[in-house]
Amino acid sequence: MASIGEFDFIDQFLKAQASLGQPFYRHPDALGIGDDCALIPALAEGEQFAVSTDMLVEGRHYYPDVDPKSLGHKVLAVNLSDLAAMGARPVAFTLAAALRSIDAPWLTAFLEGLLSLAREAQCPLVGGDTTGIPKGAPQVFSVTVMGAVPIGHALRRDGVQPGDDLWVSGSLGGPAYGLSGHMPIQKLSWPAPRVVLGQRLRGIAHAAIDISDGLQSELMHLLKSSSSLVSSHGKGLTALAADLQWEDIALAPELAQAVANGRLSLQDARVLAATGGDEYEILFSASIQQRSLIRDLSHQLGLALTRIGTVAPAKVSAVVWRDKAGQCIDPSLSARLSHGGFQHF
Amino acid sequence: MASIGEFDFIDQFLKAQASLGQPFYRHPDALGIGDDCALIPALAEGEQFAVSTDMLVEGRHYYPDVDPKSLGHKVLAVNLSDLAAMGARPVAFTLAAALRSIDAPWLTAFLEGLLSLAREAQCPLVGGDTTGIPKGAPQVFSVTVMGAVPIGHALRRDGVQPGDDLWVSGSLGGPAYGLSGHMPIQKLSWPAPRVVLGQRLRGIAHAAIDISDGLQSELMHLLKSSSSLVSSHGKGLTALAADLQWEDIALAPELAQAVANGRLSLQDARVLAATGGDEYEILFSASIQQRSLIRDLSHQLGLALTRIGTVAPAKVSAVVWRDKAGQCIDPSLSARLSHGGFQHF
Repeated sequence: MASIGEFDFIDQFLKAQASLGQPFYRHPDALGIGDDCALIPALAEGEQFAVSTDMLVEGRHYYPDVDPKSLGHKVLAVNLSDLAAMGARPVAFTLAAALRSIDAPWLTAFLEGLLSLAREAQCPLVGGDTTGIPKGAPQVFSVTVMGAVPIGHALRRDGVQPGDDLWVSGSLGGPAYGLSGHMPIQKLSWPAPRVVLGQRLRGIAHAAIDISDGLQSELMHLLKSSSSLVSSHGKGLTALAADLQWEDIALAPELAQAVANGRLSLQDARVLAATGGDEYEILFSASIQQRSLIRDLSHQLGLALTRIGTVAPAKVSAVVWRDKAGQCIDPSLSARLSHGGFQHF
Repeated sequence: MASIGEFDFIDQFLKAQASLGQPFYRHPDALGIGDDCALIPALAEGEQFAVSTDMLVEGRHYYPDVDPKSLGHKVLAVNLSDLAAMGARPVAFTLAAALRSIDAPWLTAFLEGLLSLAREAQCPLVGGDTTGIPKGAPQVFSVTVMGAVPIGHALRRDGVQPGDDLWVSGSLGGPAYGLSGHMPIQKLSWPAPRVVLGQRLRGIAHAAIDISDGLQSELMHLLKSSSSLVSSHGKGLTALAADLQWEDIALAPELAQAVANGRLSLQDARVLAATGGDEYEILFSASIQQRSLIRDLSHQLGLALTRIGTVAPAKVSAVVWRDKAGQCIDPSLSARLSHGGFQHF
């Protein structure tokens, strides 16, 4: 573990970036790491920037013994997932890191994971800051990602319309199951942000959000954000509520397997799927007229898109789960669902 | 010290922002905190984005007992200084924070300092992430700032031309003197980023850098960045060296006072001024034809702009200090200067 200065570290970044040969670094108006600021080439006419930032703290968002390559992948992936949920295409990102020391093999693996995803997503690293943090303190990584989206066409949280279907990409509950100690889960270490899906949903979805903190919790954010913009439907129905099909949650393969093997009840599996975080799937709403278009999209992308319920005007924002017979699920089960969602403190 | 969730904290941010009534939040294409991404209205035609990120760690970049209001000011100021050194106008910023707990009075003061500077610089907070960090660990703040600059007119580090004058804004050495324990220094707690100066230097300066890590150290960055682009002048002179006037360094008033009172030798004061960090002044190079324009600018802005030396072709990048008689300063003094500059590890 050599102790080197920030500038050597930045030089390593630079070389790693240059070897990627990304279009960004060939653009005459672009400037990457090494100056006071990075310079981003102008967007296409009619586009605007979407920006998101996420901070990962060792011991809180990842285990200290994490594979550094998967951690590098993940710090960028969680941010790309935010761009995806906005319908934006990735443009560039910056990384700030507080490190206990410069551990060259660890950092090299971290950068491999980071820059490999950066290349795949055509989202170059353009700026950074590295600093020390005392021994015994957790390492901290902060990524800010910039994307581009046609003006007025971003998939915001506040666009849900009464009568909309609710859809979710992929399958759920795997990461939560993995975190509960049962088994390593691919998606937990190597989340695949839905970058292409997000962009394809522009013009189709009314609203979208990425599921980082659990389906039920994110759905409440969607409903609350959109409620303030819904015109009154009379009878005091100024909010939006979701009616969801309990049996329609798409269970992650690991959960389905555990249920099949009798290691987990179907009920517990569905609770994990409805509340588990670290999914980085997209929850979106769309008019019922879009059903066949969305099914076509699912087929084209080779990605499950599951219709899980509908939205209706209501007195207060709420999520109601029903079984196939249309009955509300057991209240004690409802209570378990309401207490899910990742708490940052 | 109440423990509340991220979303309540973000709500507090939102309210604080809304009360600012900044143009950003009135723009129809803008979206601030609360969605997966912030949306930045399109720039003017012919402009591009400049982006910079900085991370501040408690105990390393600021004292744990810092006035939270000045800390809030500083986390944004250091980033605005990077924009200034690029000649960019501020557009927006994001903040990620790892906090041990939600200490409402502390955070309120922090936000007051942060948002007060944000308003002054017309640079709204548009996105954020907050997370917990264990008791005993340092708190960490990471800011990413976005600015706008006319395409092709950014003040890069690599634009120094042989024959250029070297200039520095303000006066130097105050923060280093303050950090050495002698007295509180206004500039250390409340740095004033040279946002207006940076923009006014477009078309005048050939290259610029902000002095966060010390004049001598930053000057070496300028020279090295620019050397690679200098065409050979024959005789192997493929690099750039700076010839500086030792007596021409502008000493901070606190240093001048300490020298006058006999508490500090003039030599030691100049060493502090030449190597001290946390300055956030702008070091720039410009053709000698610009001298009168730069003096006019200094007058208009009410800000000292001091010509400290010149640049010439050389075999290797180097900084040479001379006294008024044109003699190189004492080698042992030179050695002290070369070992200045903030080391991040």
